[in-house]
Amino acid sequence: MAKEKQDKQFVKEITPQGEDFSRWYIDVIKKADLMSYSPVRGCIVFKPDGYEIWENIQKELDRRFKETGHRNAYFPMFIPESFFQKEKEHVEGFNPELPWVTEAGGEKLEERLAIRPTSETMIGHMYSEWINSYRDLPVLINQWANVVRWEKRTQPFLRTSEFLWQEGHTAHEDEADARKETMQMLEIYRDFAENYLAIPVIMGQKTPSEKFAGAVDTYSIEAMMKDGKAVQAGTSHYLGTNFAVAFDIKYLDRENTHQFCHTTSWGVSTRLIGALIMVHGDDRGLALPPKIAPTQVVMIPIGPPKTREAVVGRVDELYSQLKAAGVRAKVDDNPDQSPGWKFNEYEMRGVPIRVELGPRDMENGQVVLVSRITGEKRIVQQDQFVEEVQKLLTETHQEMYDRAKRFRDENMTEADTVDELKTFLDGKRGFALSGWCGSAACEAQVKEETGATSRNIPFEAPAKPKCLVCGEPSKHTVVFGRAY
Amino acid sequence: MAKEKQDKQFVKEITPQGEDFSRWYIDVIKKADLMSYSPVRGCIVFKPDGYEIWENIQKELDRRFKETGHRNAYFPMFIPESFFQKEKEHVEGFNPELPWVTEAGGEKLEERLAIRPTSETMIGHMYSEWINSYRDLPVLINQWANVVRWEKRTQPFLRTSEFLWQEGHTAHEDEADARKETMQMLEIYRDFAENYLAIPVIMGQKTPSEKFAGAVDTYSIEAMMKDGKAVQAGTSHYLGTNFAVAFDIKYLDRENTHQFCHTTSWGVSTRLIGALIMVHGDDRGLALPPKIAPTQVVMIPIGPPKTREAVVGRVDELYSQLKAAGVRAKVDDNPDQSPGWKFNEYEMRGVPIRVELGPRDMENGQVVLVSRITGEKRIVQQDQFVEEVQKLLTETHQEMYDRAKRFRDENMTEADTVDELKTFLDGKRGFALSGWCGSAACEAQVKEETGATSRNIPFEAPAKPKCLVCGEPSKHTVVFGRAY
Repeated sequence: MAKEKQDKQFVKEITPQGEDFSRWYIDVIKKADLMSYSPVRGCIVFKPDGYEIWENIQKELDRRFKETGHRNAYFPMFIPESFFQKEKEHVEGFNPELPWVTEAGGEKLEERLAIRPTSETMIGHMYSEWINSYRDLPVLINQWANVVRWEKRTQPFLRTSEFLWQEGHTAHEDEADARKETMQMLEIYRDFAENYLAIPVIMGQKTPSEKFAGAVDTYSIEAMMKDGKAVQAGTSHYLGTNFAVAFDIKYLDRENTHQFCHTTSWGVSTRLIGALIMVHGDDRGLALPPKIAPTQVVMIPIGPPKTREAVVGRVDELYSQLKAAGVRAKVDDNPDQSPGWKFNEYEMRGVPIRVELGPRDMENGQVVLVSRITGEKRIVQQDQFVEEVQKLLTETHQEMYDRAKRFRDENMTEADTVDELKTFLDGKRGFALSGWCGSAACEAQVKEETGATSRNIPFEAPAKPKCLVCGEPSKHTVVFGRAY
Repeated sequence: MAKEKQDKQFVKEITPQGEDFSRWYIDVIKKADLMSYSPVRGCIVFKPDGYEIWENIQKELDRRFKETGHRNAYFPMFIPESFFQKEKEHVEGFNPELPWVTEAGGEKLEERLAIRPTSETMIGHMYSEWINSYRDLPVLINQWANVVRWEKRTQPFLRTSEFLWQEGHTAHEDEADARKETMQMLEIYRDFAENYLAIPVIMGQKTPSEKFAGAVDTYSIEAMMKDGKAVQAGTSHYLGTNFAVAFDIKYLDRENTHQFCHTTSWGVSTRLIGALIMVHGDDRGLALPPKIAPTQVVMIPIGPPKTREAVVGRVDELYSQLKAAGVRAKVDDNPDQSPGWKFNEYEMRGVPIRVELGPRDMENGQVVLVSRITGEKRIVQQDQFVEEVQKLLTETHQEMYDRAKRFRDENMTEADTVDELKTFLDGKRGFALSGWCGSAACEAQVKEETGATSRNIPFEAPAKPKCLVCGEPSKHTVVFGRAY
């Protein structure tokens, strides 16, 4: 499909990151043809090149969920208004963002139906019907679905009114089992982010004011974008018996006594696509980590017309070898575009490896590999081609992770006062570790004065003796940052 | 998950098909734990055992779509009211079934938003932005999504207010190319239904009164359920330039002249799950065709406790062999349930092959395979185990297809008058081939007098000289049937 041509008319050059990071982001996603704005406020179209990234995310996470005993199901997206009233914090948290269906099939509805912003209530209702005995537990279900949160300010992928996500919902006999599940899923998210998306993340617990509406404890993984801002890349919630009490999810235990279930929920969404772009992209465009890239290797035949047929023939052979080895490759032998144009094009699209083959390489039995991320050229023997490509893919993942981690570490500081934090955020930008006394008032003051929110309380962080706001003894070390 | 126990409390015995087919259907899907009714009118929960069938349908169709050059994308589910006004037939067809979002984020919306019943309008709008030149064509996009049609009468899987489906939407330079696409996708659906779901179908064209609202021509595959009723199992529409004119989808052709695109759309939905059940199920429960069955083989160790360990060990070895060969198998060695209970259980769940192994089989180096559909027992050598299982799976698919086709053929007749048709439908039931003059009035009269609708005009059918209603010369041979 050549339709990207049209969208590219709007983006002649990509704005450099240093000049205007937001402009850079929009330029890149338009030019790489990942999305279009839609006529509905805050909703985007996930175009094929963008959606394919989501498909790869789905495939890998789904595999991991199933490996850990979860199964998929699908619940209605309409949620009766009365369901939201059952969990007090939940309704307060989500009510302002709900779209309401008030008419259907030509009639006014007796009870308004919300479009799900998340499904704890609907699923809680169903679990109360399904679960009777300890023998029914645990229930380990995941759902891939669209959800809607009518946001005031939206940004493609990172925050859209309708978005795609997965939401796991599990029910357990006791707190210990539910907490184990909560942590297991958080660890799956961390491992996926780091070892698949090459995004280093900070694992930790949300402060009470930042936790999920209705949760006892919320845990998150937080990633740093190249402008120093944070993206919450995944969350896992221990819900205690809050939803079980609200929806009457009870079971008969081994002593024949009724007990409330302990439940969890956990999710990641299409905002991961935005994080991928903002963590790895550069002034030349997208840079996709090899494991998630829809095209891992692009192969470009070069040289004059007279050697063309032989070169393309050899490229096709090498392509078949890659395909047989499970590498996602593509050949671009379009004679209407120059190799130079193609080099730029696939760099902009973030393809991790470019393969060049010309008549001289044919003579020498060689082939050239070029890394998108480092620009390094490797001349390799054709009979080692597949191994060399696989090696470079592995190295590229590691290189991208290392770069992202180095960037993050270089842009983390410790701030002992609100002034220090503000100076840091207005200047160099990034994340700051600070002591916090545990009071919501101090946290709110940080937000008001600096625009930064507490991202989480990292599982691993240096001890900080005093609260950055009140100077009282610190209860936790918190990572603060401005966030998307 | 043992939660099926609870649902099964409601279904002690499966009502025989001959006694009450509708009761049988509901009994089976409850007892096999495929779905739950939800608190929202007409919406069901797709429970893991039901959803897994859909996942298998998705996987195979998605493969076929991509093989034929289609890519997935995702469009907003909210459709501005004004979009529906642009295609007259489309709005008339869908308006009565739309749910409307009138408030969101705490405010009344300026323009009401429908939840998509299908996405021609939204996608048409986007295509008009994306397509400029013949070089942009064809656009070949598919979407996996939830859609809503606020139906008056619903039935689990077959007709629910919210359901899951795929909708392909393509744009082409001319009629020939668009018609080729329409037929290609219809053929993919036929092949999938017959060679994957083991459901024989009748391919044909819908009459004007039964076609998709806004299409020039609609084609369908129609399947016969065991009660003789029809299920439309897939449709493919040639939309002509109707939506292109309505949404201004134009391109510059090779002569630099503006032309309207010719578009198509095509879809199948979760109603296929209902069709699977009603085509293959019997009084013992579900019967799933091997290619789609989540579990293809269940392995049950039998015999007294003293030989148990050795038997289970051997079963596990055989299980590993199946797994390595890509067969979806499962071992049930739960000592708390008798083999007899398990035999019934997995028959009810429709697992195509049961494998039994006891101490006598161990001694003889044998293993027993039992076919769900025929009840046939095969004693095979353990060293031929995998080959024999694969052979029986292949034969089972063929046997299920042949049975369904035999049933369909035995329940098809030719009806020369409305009275003949009515007598047939009230008695034996099934499909009838009849001549039709082409007038909408005659077609409407058939529906009024018999409750049957024209299913389609089959591509292959005997010529019938006269219209069954008016007796005038027939234009087409039509297949009539009562439908879900």
